[in-house]
Amino acid sequence: MSKTAVLLVDCPDRKGLVAAIHNFLIEAYDVNILNADQHQDAELGLFFMRVEFVTENEECTVDHFRERFMPIAAKYAMHWRMDFEDTQQNVAIFVSQYLHCLADLLYRHQTGELQCNLTMIVSNHEDARPLAEFYKIPFHYTPVTAATKQQVEQRQLALLAEAKVDLVILARYMQIVSPQFVDAYPQRIINVHHSFLPAFTGARPYHAAFARGVKLIGASSHYVTAELDEGPIIEQDVTRISQNDALPSLIQKGRDLERLVLSRAVQWHLGHRILSYANKTVIFA
Amino acid sequence: MSKTAVLLVDCPDRKGLVAAIHNFLIEAYDVNILNADQHQDAELGLFFMRVEFVTENEECTVDHFRERFMPIAAKYAMHWRMDFEDTQQNVAIFVSQYLHCLADLLYRHQTGELQCNLTMIVSNHEDARPLAEFYKIPFHYTPVTAATKQQVEQRQLALLAEAKVDLVILARYMQIVSPQFVDAYPQRIINVHHSFLPAFTGARPYHAAFARGVKLIGASSHYVTAELDEGPIIEQDVTRISQNDALPSLIQKGRDLERLVLSRAVQWHLGHRILSYANKTVIFA
Amino acid sequence: MSKTAVLLVDCPDRKGLVAAIHNFLIEAYDVNILNADQHQDAELGLFFMRVEFVTENEECTVDHFRERFMPIAAKYAMHWRMDFEDTQQNVAIFVSQYLHCLADLLYRHQTGELQCNLTMIVSNHEDARPLAEFYKIPFHYTPVTAATKQQVEQRQLALLAEAKVDLVILARYMQIVSPQFVDAYPQRIINVHHSFLPAFTGARPYHAAFARGVKLIGASSHYVTAELDEGPIIEQDVTRISQNDALPSLIQKGRDLERLVLSRAVQWHLGHRILSYANKTVIFA
Amino acid sequence: MSKTAVLLVDCPDRKGLVAAIHNFLIEAYDVNILNADQHQDAELGLFFMRVEFVTENEECTVDHFRERFMPIAAKYAMHWRMDFEDTQQNVAIFVSQYLHCLADLLYRHQTGELQCNLTMIVSNHEDARPLAEFYKIPFHYTPVTAATKQQVEQRQLALLAEAKVDLVILARYMQIVSPQFVDAYPQRIINVHHSFLPAFTGARPYHAAFARGVKLIGASSHYVTAELDEGPIIEQDVTRISQNDALPSLIQKGRDLERLVLSRAVQWHLGHRILSYANKTVIFA
Repeated sequence: MSKTAVLLVDCPDRKGLVAAIHNFLIEAYDVNILNADQHQDAELGLFFMRVEFVTENEECTVDHFRERFMPIAAKYAMHWRMDFEDTQQNVAIFVSQYLHCLADLLYRHQTGELQCNLTMIVSNHEDARPLAEFYKIPFHYTPVTAATKQQVEQRQLALLAEAKVDLVILARYMQIVSPQFVDAYPQRIINVHHSFLPAFTGARPYHAAFARGVKLIGASSHYVTAELDEGPIIEQDVTRISQNDALPSLIQKGRDLERLVLSRAVQWHLGHRILSYANKTVIFA
Repeated sequence: MSKTAVLLVDCPDRKGLVAAIHNFLIEAYDVNILNADQHQDAELGLFFMRVEFVTENEECTVDHFRERFMPIAAKYAMHWRMDFEDTQQNVAIFVSQYLHCLADLLYRHQTGELQCNLTMIVSNHEDARPLAEFYKIPFHYTPVTAATKQQVEQRQLALLAEAKVDLVILARYMQIVSPQFVDAYPQRIINVHHSFLPAFTGARPYHAAFARGVKLIGASSHYVTAELDEGPIIEQDVTRISQNDALPSLIQKGRDLERLVLSRAVQWHLGHRILSYANKTVIFA
Repeated sequence: MSKTAVLLVDCPDRKGLVAAIHNFLIEAYDVNILNADQHQDAELGLFFMRVEFVTENEECTVDHFRERFMPIAAKYAMHWRMDFEDTQQNVAIFVSQYLHCLADLLYRHQTGELQCNLTMIVSNHEDARPLAEFYKIPFHYTPVTAATKQQVEQRQLALLAEAKVDLVILARYMQIVSPQFVDAYPQRIINVHHSFLPAFTGARPYHAAFARGVKLIGASSHYVTAELDEGPIIEQDVTRISQNDALPSLIQKGRDLERLVLSRAVQWHLGHRILSYANKTVIFA
Repeated sequence: MSKTAVLLVDCPDRKGLVAAIHNFLIEAYDVNILNADQHQDAELGLFFMRVEFVTENEECTVDHFRERFMPIAAKYAMHWRMDFEDTQQNVAIFVSQYLHCLADLLYRHQTGELQCNLTMIVSNHEDARPLAEFYKIPFHYTPVTAATKQQVEQRQLALLAEAKVDLVILARYMQIVSPQFVDAYPQRIINVHHSFLPAFTGARPYHAAFARGVKLIGASSHYVTAELDEGPIIEQDVTRISQNDALPSLIQKGRDLERLVLSRAVQWHLGHRILSYANKTVIFA
């Protein structure tokens, strides 16, 4: 009975770190390494590592690992997490009326590209219900007004808590989530913004891009932080436009980008391939 | 003796415009059309056209054309220009200490990619002199201090005027040109900015891009207007970076983009392929 | 009551062609031009044009247009067609077991990106039935064996004829269609091939690309001709891969390309934006 | 006195490899790791590693390292090499009459992008001489005829041997080098081919691409092996073309790609960032 797991580590860079981690994995669990990636930020003196390994040692549980790894983690002042690959994360998707990202995520989930437990779709509109029903995902309709915003968010947080949600995806959810909401899911809310950040933050970025006369339009996926559109960027992509692209054509091309950058970000997050520091991300893809 | 020419037209959109222009060209000069491109801005009600034609009619000179075309141009309230392809434009390149764009332009000029008369290289540093000498282009050293800036610009303008310069290329010229300078060459100064505009305007855009943690870096070429980095964008391109790209690597990748977007903009300008309106460009490439 | 239409023309290049067409449109139907694009192949002496126009002249029907336009068409030896924008084409999608392209086309059709009448989904497998039912498109299950191939194709052709299908989309249909089938729909069958043609023609192109160690993988959409994978290419796109992309990852990235190049091709075909000659396509996008 | 070095390793994948290498580097030379990358080919059971490290241990010379590392290398059946970063490789550039790649390489060398000792430019034409003289690189004119081909190659090999050349760059050298020549520099000859390999191998690939009507053109850099255009691909890139790109425009766009893919390949080779196996390359960039 072999188990595959991913170990993510970040800590101050020190001599012997890689050897220490590998030596530990071999001695403790006689692992086979499937993949190992590391990154060093020389300027800040930081070290980041992702190791994907297989072990046949049945003692290797999350609790056992924590206990055994603790001395090393403490010695090097590591932040770390270890996840078994067969442990599916609980995911919730928030969406409003533009459904292209949702439809894309649902399809990728169905085909196995996105390995996770899709617990719910939450929306302030009813538009997404048929898709949710087709893919047999629970749908929660949570309409929002200025007056009810706070209490709706409380209900949403309760739904997330009850389902033990690990990751929230804002798939064109057109409501600004509160700092309290963000605090509840640090580095665990992924948003798609329909511009090449940091250009065109805020509302109606396609309109702004059109007005500025750019020759490429973009989309960005990022972790949500308290400051709107300022969180660590996970993925970006662009496509060429020309004078032949009036606003509807520009928007349509942009939507193809949104689907790509959001689905890549989600896939990387689910695969424990993202580390974040200094408002940046390290992607081990 | 056939002559090739380009006619550029912009005017309010009206019924029968294309027919009127084509009928005129055939009746007046019995032309063959080599290429014709047009663009309509439905929202603003504007029409743009580029026609490249050949005529064997020896009467077809700039003056003769102007006289013949005037009634149509007046009727439709056209802005227009007609240029013979064998009339080389006079070009000046301004540069400071980063020479990659200059070296690229000089090489492309030598191989015939950029059809123009390179009249001079102007710089506030001596670094570019050897390249200028190798390619046998006159080099003017015009050092600038805060105190002398205004009088240096006067000298530069005198040099440009004397050489009857049609186009000024700012190929990483690290001085801000004055509104007076810009006014002297409207839509005839092309700058390269080392970011994906409108992201990272101003100084040190690569450093800003690195700090923001973007996943793609870009470069933009644009016409210079009185407002820094706000002129009509001509061309943009981007390339992917990752955590493996520390600042020097990012800058190196960016330089390859700068050379591409600047040389494309210059080539399009020289080929009368750019029309500009509403702080945007229409590219007939 | 205004009507929008697209006129497509190809013919030998001759002086006065553009003027003749525009003059006709104005005189016959007092049109407003919305867009006009043309292309000349100087080497082969060919001319191609697409004009999108609006007329309020109620006489302008397909039959009336044909009668009025015939003298000009004859004089210039034109191939041409004129289609009203509100006339939806009848489309059939053929698919086997990979459903990513089908799902994408169905979603784009539902959102209005693909303006057409989706008459049927035809498949040699049952896998696509649930999608067909969700989107309420008739589904025809036509299993194929070596023995029944010919007679199955007869049934498929009968289905297409009965529904007056204008365009057949092979959205990863894993059967080779016969020359008779191709002849029945010249330039009206669009296929997606999962390689950057002409590299990796034939079966299992992703496997071949992986084996060759390419650094970019691609996908191509093309019109189907009698020679497999040799028809006129409509659209291509590529994405970067690295040693980190084992075959499954490469295939997943490729599928995103397939969806894009196929949907673009279909959209251009439906918009009468493609002309084909010399085994190439001219795209007026 | 610290020294920076790169260790490249490839061998059968075995448990404990990474730990063994890191443990060795620490124990033997008390190194700091600057970068470490690894790749595993699960299918073939192969392991590849690049480690960039700094040591202040003055004993660390190439000979000393070889002696100390030998037991580990033997135990794991490693192919390996270790190079100090300040040891510049000797490079020769072969070129014919298209000088765009040469000019680009020379400029990048001058600016420090390409860290190497440019020992010579070899050409069967005189066209490159002025560039060689400007950049002060020895120029060898070695004209070739069918009759003299073999003896000219002998002379070229003698020149390379005398200069102890480590890397030969074929920068659009329009002669086919013999198997003997290739054997003398295994994985040490880099060629640029002006197509997206494996499409359009052989002569005149731009013409072939134009004839096939592709929508993207490409360029590829690769190690030269005995089979023409079949060696391991190092880098590829593409750019979009349309019906507006007649052959000269297509060729010009292609040349910008050639310069990029060739210079990237050379830079990676010089930085010991390429490992090659199974006719593929692993790039640690």
